[in-house]
Amino acid sequence: AMAVYTEVADADLLSFMSAYPLGQVLSVKGIAEGVENTNYLVHMEAGPFILTLYEKRVKRHDLPFFLGLMEHLSGKGLTCPTPIHDSAGSVLRELAGRPAAVMSFLEGMWPKRPSVAHCRAVGEALARFHLAASDYGIERPNALSVMDWRPLMQPVADRAEREWPGIMAEVTTDLDALEARWPDALPTGVVHADLFPDNVFFLGDRLSGIIDFYFACNDMLAYDLAICLNAWCFEPDLSFNVTKSQALVSGYQSVRPLTTNETLVMPLLAQGAAMRFLATRLVDWINYPPNAFVKPHDPIAYLKRLRFHRQSQGPGDYGITS
Amino acid sequence: AMAVYTEVADADLLSFMSAYPLGQVLSVKGIAEGVENTNYLVHMEAGPFILTLYEKRVKRHDLPFFLGLMEHLSGKGLTCPTPIHDSAGSVLRELAGRPAAVMSFLEGMWPKRPSVAHCRAVGEALARFHLAASDYGIERPNALSVMDWRPLMQPVADRAEREWPGIMAEVTTDLDALEARWPDALPTGVVHADLFPDNVFFLGDRLSGIIDFYFACNDMLAYDLAICLNAWCFEPDLSFNVTKSQALVSGYQSVRPLTTNETLVMPLLAQGAAMRFLATRLVDWINYPPNAFVKPHDPIAYLKRLRFHRQSQGPGDYGITS
Repeated sequence: AMAVYTEVADADLLSFMSAYPLGQVLSVKGIAEGVENTNYLVHMEAGPFILTLYEKRVKRHDLPFFLGLMEHLSGKGLTCPTPIHDSAGSVLRELAGRPAAVMSFLEGMWPKRPSVAHCRAVGEALARFHLAASDYGIERPNALSVMDWRPLMQPVADRAEREWPGIMAEVTTDLDALEARWPDALPTGVVHADLFPDNVFFLGDRLSGIIDFYFACNDMLAYDLAICLNAWCFEPDLSFNVTKSQALVSGYQSVRPLTTNETLVMPLLAQGAAMRFLATRLVDWINYPPNAFVKPHDPIAYLKRLRFHRQSQGPGDYGITS
Repeated sequence: AMAVYTEVADADLLSFMSAYPLGQVLSVKGIAEGVENTNYLVHMEAGPFILTLYEKRVKRHDLPFFLGLMEHLSGKGLTCPTPIHDSAGSVLRELAGRPAAVMSFLEGMWPKRPSVAHCRAVGEALARFHLAASDYGIERPNALSVMDWRPLMQPVADRAEREWPGIMAEVTTDLDALEARWPDALPTGVVHADLFPDNVFFLGDRLSGIIDFYFACNDMLAYDLAICLNAWCFEPDLSFNVTKSQALVSGYQSVRPLTTNETLVMPLLAQGAAMRFLATRLVDWINYPPNAFVKPHDPIAYLKRLRFHRQSQGPGDYGITS
């Protein structure tokens, strides 16, 4: 169960939509997904579109980077939502006091139980994304990189420790190691940085598109793959499925082969990726109001992933043969 | 902000939808409206459809009446959702432990601020509905008729009295009058019984369809119009707009002229209709859990409507000339 955050008056919505060359509005349904933004599925005479109102978690000054990226990727043939230009040429406008944009609608469903075939397909798509974004002209630094994780967790450390005794000592040891050993000479570019199953649509086994570029930034390309290892290759019981990771990585390499250094450092990058999601989920968990409608993810699932990566013996544990 | 109540696993949903001759599922979005049932907007290869899961407020044994009615009305050319038959011929099935049906999708938007033109159109549509339903073969008694209102409110009377001192004495006087004077010789048939603005879709000024037949039952046809007088003709400040009521009733009469007796008794029927919604809203208000996501409607808005009808001098107050 999810929520629509912002209710828009019909008159405002019709007036807003009339600025696009899409014909008349036929219907508008608030859709119950996406916990960060408000999304409406709008049937226009020209077809279905998504109207997104950006809530406070997405920074207004980052929107030109995100919207420009989606348009750049669509132009390169990647299937992802593309922002629609209004008659004056704008893609970023305002509605109900919020930044707002209209996107092409992508058919497809995200895989609730990712298969090996899904993992291979997402690996290929991630590499295609990296290549397609390689000549994107705008940069956005990663605001959630290795030096950000410690200060992010610091304000909630006491309460986290009370909830899960011992967690902060364990995390501190990992942070020390990650900060000391984090690589700085790997290939970089635009990364998606949040390519979880709910951001990848499939029609049957065919990947039909990638959505939600609102964490995209410049970072090491291999780190993006390490995020996917965390997001796609653990089973519901949090055991690691090496068949899936092998498929994910080989799918990636079929489009963009990893360098030897990227391969060797993959366990450390995966450990860092687990720490990045542990950090934000810990903060969300501690700060979430007891009566919040959308319950945050359990952060401990990422502590367990982090432990797996910490004890790994090398790329072979991920099915990566260099 | 509204809620999707039941989350359905994708595998179950795909398997469920594969029983319909509509091609493959292209996408599924939980839609954030309808507080009684769970609704998904499903894009199939054949077009958009609504998948409804019936939550507890709709009685399972009533569903054949409701679904059959929608199919009957669609067959007569009324624009309303029509239940789709699966390959075995069924319209009522089960999904996630709930009765479930797939409906045609109706484009359109409900009018947040109904105009006089909307009122005229809804009057016409209500009369067309009455005529189209006149040969529907199944009957369903009205479970919320005049003799049901007093026992419905009785269990919450003390708490209502504490919240709004004096309300129960006032309501009891009205109930006495309504029970004594309620007519029993007016033309009857299938009534919608809940034709509020959020159940009527428009594309511009053109009425594009009627939805939500889950209160439909057999009762006096003029009572259905009296419900609409309450639902469509009061302004946000609860003043009565006689221009709108005149348009509503004359729209109705342009399709089905009222009898003299129906006209004369309209103020009493309108008073009863106000009482019917006061009763259920009072019960919902008293019983609603303090942390409920969907806040119930304020019952006092219906007490104020009731007072208007109680003091009216006759059909002329509604712009009805006999």
